[in-house]
Amino acid sequence: MKDEPRRVDVALGERSYPIIIGRGLLDDGELLREHIPAHEVMVVSNDTVAPLYLDRLASAFGTRRFASACLPDGEGEKRLESMLPVFDTMLVNGFSRDCRIIALGGGVIGDLAGFVAATYQRGVDFVQVPTTLLAMVDSSVGGKTGVNHPRGKNMIGAFHQPRAVIADLAVLDTLPVRELRAGMAEVIKYALLGDHGFLEWLEAHIDAAMARDPEAMAFIIERCCRNKAAIVTADERESGQRALLNLGHTFGHAIEGARGYGDWLHGEAIAAGMCMAARMSTRLGWISPAQRDRAIDLIRRAGLPVRAPDDIGAARFREFMARDKKNRHGELRLVLLRDLGDATVTADYDPDALDATLESAGHE
Amino acid sequence: MKDEPRRVDVALGERSYPIIIGRGLLDDGELLREHIPAHEVMVVSNDTVAPLYLDRLASAFGTRRFASACLPDGEGEKRLESMLPVFDTMLVNGFSRDCRIIALGGGVIGDLAGFVAATYQRGVDFVQVPTTLLAMVDSSVGGKTGVNHPRGKNMIGAFHQPRAVIADLAVLDTLPVRELRAGMAEVIKYALLGDHGFLEWLEAHIDAAMARDPEAMAFIIERCCRNKAAIVTADERESGQRALLNLGHTFGHAIEGARGYGDWLHGEAIAAGMCMAARMSTRLGWISPAQRDRAIDLIRRAGLPVRAPDDIGAARFREFMARDKKNRHGELRLVLLRDLGDATVTADYDPDALDATLESAGHE
Repeated sequence: MKDEPRRVDVALGERSYPIIIGRGLLDDGELLREHIPAHEVMVVSNDTVAPLYLDRLASAFGTRRFASACLPDGEGEKRLESMLPVFDTMLVNGFSRDCRIIALGGGVIGDLAGFVAATYQRGVDFVQVPTTLLAMVDSSVGGKTGVNHPRGKNMIGAFHQPRAVIADLAVLDTLPVRELRAGMAEVIKYALLGDHGFLEWLEAHIDAAMARDPEAMAFIIERCCRNKAAIVTADERESGQRALLNLGHTFGHAIEGARGYGDWLHGEAIAAGMCMAARMSTRLGWISPAQRDRAIDLIRRAGLPVRAPDDIGAARFREFMARDKKNRHGELRLVLLRDLGDATVTADYDPDALDATLESAGHE
Repeated sequence: MKDEPRRVDVALGERSYPIIIGRGLLDDGELLREHIPAHEVMVVSNDTVAPLYLDRLASAFGTRRFASACLPDGEGEKRLESMLPVFDTMLVNGFSRDCRIIALGGGVIGDLAGFVAATYQRGVDFVQVPTTLLAMVDSSVGGKTGVNHPRGKNMIGAFHQPRAVIADLAVLDTLPVRELRAGMAEVIKYALLGDHGFLEWLEAHIDAAMARDPEAMAFIIERCCRNKAAIVTADERESGQRALLNLGHTFGHAIEGARGYGDWLHGEAIAAGMCMAARMSTRLGWISPAQRDRAIDLIRRAGLPVRAPDDIGAARFREFMARDKKNRHGELRLVLLRDLGDATVTADYDPDALDATLESAGHE
């Protein structure tokens, strides 16, 4: 028996779009054709995901013009040069501005394919078909697209909203456990930054979630998408509260950059980064040691790292953090916790608390 | 004695901006600082233009943070890979989203620097300081940014409006004559596509213009900018009439692509392309042979080529034209002349007229 898909709307005027969440959506040709009405369909995927799902997608489009580009899997591919073969395939196939791109994969593919869509012939439509938990709850929603630069993560990109997000829960059945955990880092992020009720729910259901209980997963993904949709609707271009979604990311991006992209998964780095943010918030006296430990315990129960690698050092952290996109006029802005479920973006904090947090990042 | 600068406004709501036209603007520190109020200033230029003007720009910004990236001169540099050193300089200098980029150069630099601005940290402000006639009358206005792909011109890019265009007429005094002619191709384009009064003026004053008469040049640049501003205001993202600005470009881009970018200047290719469009329009019976010859004569008087190179061939033309961004659903759309001063974008033409025009492109 197939349940009716759940639907979350991202309200952005003429750029509004639906997030469709359900089991078996990749086998639902009618739904796929409804949301991908173009005559020219271009799939961007990677060599892990494509063998599993590309044929199913292709079969939904019958006689339409259909092409695909398949990148090696991994964060190391998220760079400007990797876009060139995708553009090449589209041009060889003569795809016009009326084509539609499908991003079939996790966060790397979604960000890169979205940026290809933002820039191919100065912009074409695209649809996100996320195949990881992380992409379903976070990166596929909200229109942030882009690639990394050797000197910083997501430094090159554009805001370009998808026309739809289609999240097939069935793909989570075969998701490697390390990827499941990495996605759970972003799930926990929503709870910590602004949804205390969800935090309590997660504390009660984290074991069911890690066991991929279908009802728990469906609940989690819808809840996270509703949280994200509300924030993106209020602040599409991150002039204010959208930056809250960066909880754990300033520290986490530095971990990713210092280790080389792809060594730690994004979600793993963000998990350690959220623990650092929690510890710094306690140093500032904003949350109690008990609250801090509650946040860290949940992250640990999801099988995620709760501290940075011990070989980075404060100086290297600062080097990467200095390039954070949230910074203004040389001030280092951080997302910190005023309370569990109440984050804030601020450059107004005691610098000693940051020093101490960076100094002990690898061992506390 | 310094004349008051002329000003043309591009009305695009919150993306509106002024085009300032006058002599000596690069020496007017007050005006530069007014339009470039950022604390972090990044100049993108090339190795021909930078030695002439970069120091003057730098001196206007005193103690502000100032950095520059200088590319080799030429259309061959207008590619994705050339953007990497620019991003690198900005990141090494720690430039934030509040920085402002100055595009100091011709069309290649303006398009590339604009695309850097569109994508650095998902978008920062930029100002165009065009140093060629072509850039002043055309490419610096309207927000089309991007780079070439080996398979097609301007295939990768974004719409990103500048915050101001500052056109210092004094730089035209030292512009190489070949560049002056290439710019005049775009000037003539405005007359042919929609400004019959300007066409008559040009026929009377083309010799003065080619002799760089200051009053003639000021008049030309203001008139072209007013034409362009009106079209861009009516159709910012080229869903309709903005495509008229592509008169001569479908044929011209094919010439550039077939010859390899940089062999023919863009303006030279567009000149030959406009002659092809005129000849095809006559074949269709839309303009008379006398009107066609009037258009071609003006182009010839500007010292521009009036036919394509003779070694391209119809098949190669079609190969490049098939990738034109104006195409829809496999239909080849062209900008053709219903009358002198009245162009139209259409896929509704006798294909024999196109065949004949391509077959004789190099020798009629």
